[in-house]
Amino acid sequence: MRFGAGIWLFGQFVDRYATDAYGPEVSTLEAIDAAGSVGDIEVLDINYPFTEGVSVADVRAALERHGISAWCITPHIYTREFRAGAFTNPEPAVRRRALELCEEAVDVAKQLGAPTVKLWPGQDGWDFPLQCDYREVWRLSLEGVKAVAAMDEAIRVAIEYKAKEPRVHISYANAARTLLGIAQMGREDIGIVVDLGHSLFAKETPADALHLVNDHGRLYTVEVNDNWREWDDDLPVASVHLVETIEFFLALRQIGWDQPILLDQFPFRENPVEAARASINTMRAIDAALDRLDLDALADAQQRQDPLASQRLVTDLLLGGARVG
Amino acid sequence: MRFGAGIWLFGQFVDRYATDAYGPEVSTLEAIDAAGSVGDIEVLDINYPFTEGVSVADVRAALERHGISAWCITPHIYTREFRAGAFTNPEPAVRRRALELCEEAVDVAKQLGAPTVKLWPGQDGWDFPLQCDYREVWRLSLEGVKAVAAMDEAIRVAIEYKAKEPRVHISYANAARTLLGIAQMGREDIGIVVDLGHSLFAKETPADALHLVNDHGRLYTVEVNDNWREWDDDLPVASVHLVETIEFFLALRQIGWDQPILLDQFPFRENPVEAARASINTMRAIDAALDRLDLDALADAQQRQDPLASQRLVTDLLLGGARVG
Amino acid sequence: MRFGAGIWLFGQFVDRYATDAYGPEVSTLEAIDAAGSVGDIEVLDINYPFTEGVSVADVRAALERHGISAWCITPHIYTREFRAGAFTNPEPAVRRRALELCEEAVDVAKQLGAPTVKLWPGQDGWDFPLQCDYREVWRLSLEGVKAVAAMDEAIRVAIEYKAKEPRVHISYANAARTLLGIAQMGREDIGIVVDLGHSLFAKETPADALHLVNDHGRLYTVEVNDNWREWDDDLPVASVHLVETIEFFLALRQIGWDQPILLDQFPFRENPVEAARASINTMRAIDAALDRLDLDALADAQQRQDPLASQRLVTDLLLGGARVG
Amino acid sequence: MRFGAGIWLFGQFVDRYATDAYGPEVSTLEAIDAAGSVGDIEVLDINYPFTEGVSVADVRAALERHGISAWCITPHIYTREFRAGAFTNPEPAVRRRALELCEEAVDVAKQLGAPTVKLWPGQDGWDFPLQCDYREVWRLSLEGVKAVAAMDEAIRVAIEYKAKEPRVHISYANAARTLLGIAQMGREDIGIVVDLGHSLFAKETPADALHLVNDHGRLYTVEVNDNWREWDDDLPVASVHLVETIEFFLALRQIGWDQPILLDQFPFRENPVEAARASINTMRAIDAALDRLDLDALADAQQRQDPLASQRLVTDLLLGGARVG
Repeated sequence: MRFGAGIWLFGQFVDRYATDAYGPEVSTLEAIDAAGSVGDIEVLDINYPFTEGVSVADVRAALERHGISAWCITPHIYTREFRAGAFTNPEPAVRRRALELCEEAVDVAKQLGAPTVKLWPGQDGWDFPLQCDYREVWRLSLEGVKAVAAMDEAIRVAIEYKAKEPRVHISYANAARTLLGIAQMGREDIGIVVDLGHSLFAKETPADALHLVNDHGRLYTVEVNDNWREWDDDLPVASVHLVETIEFFLALRQIGWDQPILLDQFPFRENPVEAARASINTMRAIDAALDRLDLDALADAQQRQDPLASQRLVTDLLLGGARVG
Repeated sequence: MRFGAGIWLFGQFVDRYATDAYGPEVSTLEAIDAAGSVGDIEVLDINYPFTEGVSVADVRAALERHGISAWCITPHIYTREFRAGAFTNPEPAVRRRALELCEEAVDVAKQLGAPTVKLWPGQDGWDFPLQCDYREVWRLSLEGVKAVAAMDEAIRVAIEYKAKEPRVHISYANAARTLLGIAQMGREDIGIVVDLGHSLFAKETPADALHLVNDHGRLYTVEVNDNWREWDDDLPVASVHLVETIEFFLALRQIGWDQPILLDQFPFRENPVEAARASINTMRAIDAALDRLDLDALADAQQRQDPLASQRLVTDLLLGGARVG
Repeated sequence: MRFGAGIWLFGQFVDRYATDAYGPEVSTLEAIDAAGSVGDIEVLDINYPFTEGVSVADVRAALERHGISAWCITPHIYTREFRAGAFTNPEPAVRRRALELCEEAVDVAKQLGAPTVKLWPGQDGWDFPLQCDYREVWRLSLEGVKAVAAMDEAIRVAIEYKAKEPRVHISYANAARTLLGIAQMGREDIGIVVDLGHSLFAKETPADALHLVNDHGRLYTVEVNDNWREWDDDLPVASVHLVETIEFFLALRQIGWDQPILLDQFPFRENPVEAARASINTMRAIDAALDRLDLDALADAQQRQDPLASQRLVTDLLLGGARVG
Repeated sequence: MRFGAGIWLFGQFVDRYATDAYGPEVSTLEAIDAAGSVGDIEVLDINYPFTEGVSVADVRAALERHGISAWCITPHIYTREFRAGAFTNPEPAVRRRALELCEEAVDVAKQLGAPTVKLWPGQDGWDFPLQCDYREVWRLSLEGVKAVAAMDEAIRVAIEYKAKEPRVHISYANAARTLLGIAQMGREDIGIVVDLGHSLFAKETPADALHLVNDHGRLYTVEVNDNWREWDDDLPVASVHLVETIEFFLALRQIGWDQPILLDQFPFRENPVEAARASINTMRAIDAALDRLDLDALADAQQRQDPLASQRLVTDLLLGGARVG
């Protein structure tokens, strides 16, 4: 298992109530230092623009200092300027500005050696019934991502889907919708971020979504965390859905995933370094547990679609214990 | 506007608590008579097998008596025999039996002049984490529908998606996933039932889902009802989500839908004929209201993605009233 | 740990799709035999009326044969007759009939030595906006339960709350609302069934709900199962929410619960005896695991409200594993 | 109908993505000016502390300039300092600081002539399973509110319940739980804010919750908005749930509510003054529509619990139209 993180895990959190933020400001460089102090982070997904005064050279130096690679560059296409949409903004000038920002992100990705620009168009969608022309919003969603993919042959684009927040309904809402959009775009260099928490939130079965995306050849990157399935709570891995998380990691084994697995957490009230370590420890422990799982017995139970048999394997693995009957 | 109904609206309802049923038994012929008595039902979606002792000739005669056409034949692939799945059942013999039943339904469709066999594989999916091999279940889901589509050149197949019930997770869960599966099947004679209630339940925006399916050329039939977005309650049209229902009917106008709109209701505690009339009356009233809606002003508001402007048009339409500011 | 079950676990299941039922008919006596064959069932919650032709003496004999006691008698106040409500039915005659049925249940409880009549008014509530006068429905809900409690000094009444199904909105929807109603009724012999699955479904934190009910002195009986939090799926214990189930059993220890814990499962597609054993095995394994949990460390973490610390205790317990950082 | 607003409607919005905020900074005085420009705002719910440099005298003068009264003072007990809880914070020193801030709010309420201090302990609760001792958190929740109520005889306290956000689970989660807590506190000067959106979000039936709170004598203030029932979206009134909003306003008539109705909106992407006017216009139109509603016919339908009859009254009111059958 190899690990990475979204750099925001180590940043400053704010929300609409704690408007004075959950902690002090953190520069991009300080966040890299924090990531480096975790001890197991190989790669980072880095937001662009960086915090004020930080250059690409500064970021490269900080990453090198910690032996960390840039995995994705994720442009901030969901800040004030883009509050009414980035790719789907009704104003052509704002859409152009979104593409310019993405182009800068592509350039930064090349400079930092990151293979991927991640797009998370969290302001692209709608809030109310009857607000927009859904066909036009979808067309703009596709057009925008396609334009970014066309910017540079060497940089691929990964779409991170999410059902909502900050927009009440986000265009790229779930895995199937995003795959459908990618097919419409007709390019080979556009893929998907499967984020375990976003999949839970989209009411998907995450292991099923992972296979679906992978079988379509579009699995570019994987993010992990947990939530209560009703919001993108970004809690540590397996803090709520342990059984489904185990199933997700089993699916990662099945597809032979050997790329890093990235943490996507918002530890509003916890120490970020400790919160990252908690998830990594849990993932290592899940990985070790999977080594002990009788995969033949599980395959046999699944071939019969026998839930009591597969559950018993999991329960034995996690709880041990004597048996009745 | 033209109307139809699923014949089950006029049948006997049962659930796991009122195991003595919510009313007396109703034969297929009695249900057709009830549908005929509504006064506005042009077409029916008819379950097959019929109730005991009823022949195709009997059904044809009953339909002719009321001037009703058969719109779909929907095979019962979700009864006891198929409780662990129809197309995805782990037992090959049960899968074969499901296909045989579908073949009979195709034959009945031809005999009754129905253009479509509707497939609702409500037992195909899973209940528990780790129960099955998701890739295999998806493969079987596609294989089964494809086999039915291949049965007869003249009969097309429409998939009705739903997130869950009776299976806890159903394979064909939402519009995008179903479109993706249809693309994988690679046939031109497989389409989708967009059911307004199933779309609400799938946390979709129904008007958006309708356009998406239509733009992919896969809109075969439309069903309507309402629910509380957390279950397939099958309530009368617009009883809960009036604004979104208006938006859905506007989308039907936009795509030029001139086929019947079918009621999919389960009036457990109401008179079915009255429950059907309630929905039809509501739909006629929505249709009349749409005639009064300023479509240019709406298009302008939507082009600007201005929710306050589009909401005001709807509020004025429904509530009238003086204005502040 | 002592175990019991709702007798329905061993009965025939039906729903609105598999109207030919998920399996053959099962008499009350056959269900008791099945419960006896599990090997660990001490008590049963028994529905009244029994299946046709079964007398109280027959039930007593069957229970004695298996060394099982009657724990609750639960009258069928949610069948066809009561489809529009039992205690809250708009027809006074139906409300009277509901009370008569409850009176028979009270009498059967006395004859069988059961201390409790359980009331689950699953048809009492509403389906649509504007359907009813909420104050009157609540008044009738209270009046009905209070009348049953007054029937016999020796028999107490336990209300089983649930958010919905079969009624779209059920009056006794969650723990707090039910406690509030009990306070309004002003009697000491009315309590609550905390059903782990109903609590998950009501979006409660089950361990919190258990303490709340217990601290109000109203915890009469406990039922267990699991679901996906969006419906009362009645799956085996801990099949989805292992961590929260462990927390719930820890809460049962904290309050010193030494009464039986009853299974409330609907194994639509599984062998009921095996499904019951699966849950019992899981509960025994959880119980053994709780013996290994460092309760002082957990109390310390909880006193500090430190989620990473308490999660680590649980993760270590379930997964073991080495540590980073 | 009389109207008011939460002052935050006119303030600066920020969230965890648009960390540069959805618009520029707004001082308390500018927000009062904006409220005054709406044209129909009689009262304000005002957050304390005010923005920097603003005194009580400044606020009083600004209110007087617009003929607006202070309705509630709402202390900011959910900012950084209180991120791990205000009344339930594990640190006694932080709990004391929360009470000090509330005491200042009580004092400001007296100075401004506001009858009520509103408490919204949005950080009081938990995020993870096993994080805390639920009994202790509940005890602290009650103790804190009770202490504030005891601060001044002339100022009463209103609790605003919400299911979650920012805390993943908030202690005062719904109407019934809050009423139960108030009963435990044993004081007469503690009541409830029924917020229409929070009630929808809590999966309550808002009109039912309103009656329940009012019948317990605890309805202190009413806030309105709309959402998609899965989050506290704070959209304009009736933008999603028109029928239930009409039902809610009918319930307000039934209880004879003659106090102001306060807007609780977050117009992230709209002009706040226009968003406020949109809601007020909708409410005036609903009010006018209610004048045309046949209340006797509705009462008759509700007495029979006949949903088709009551729906028809609403549909006729909103849509008019001819009738079938």
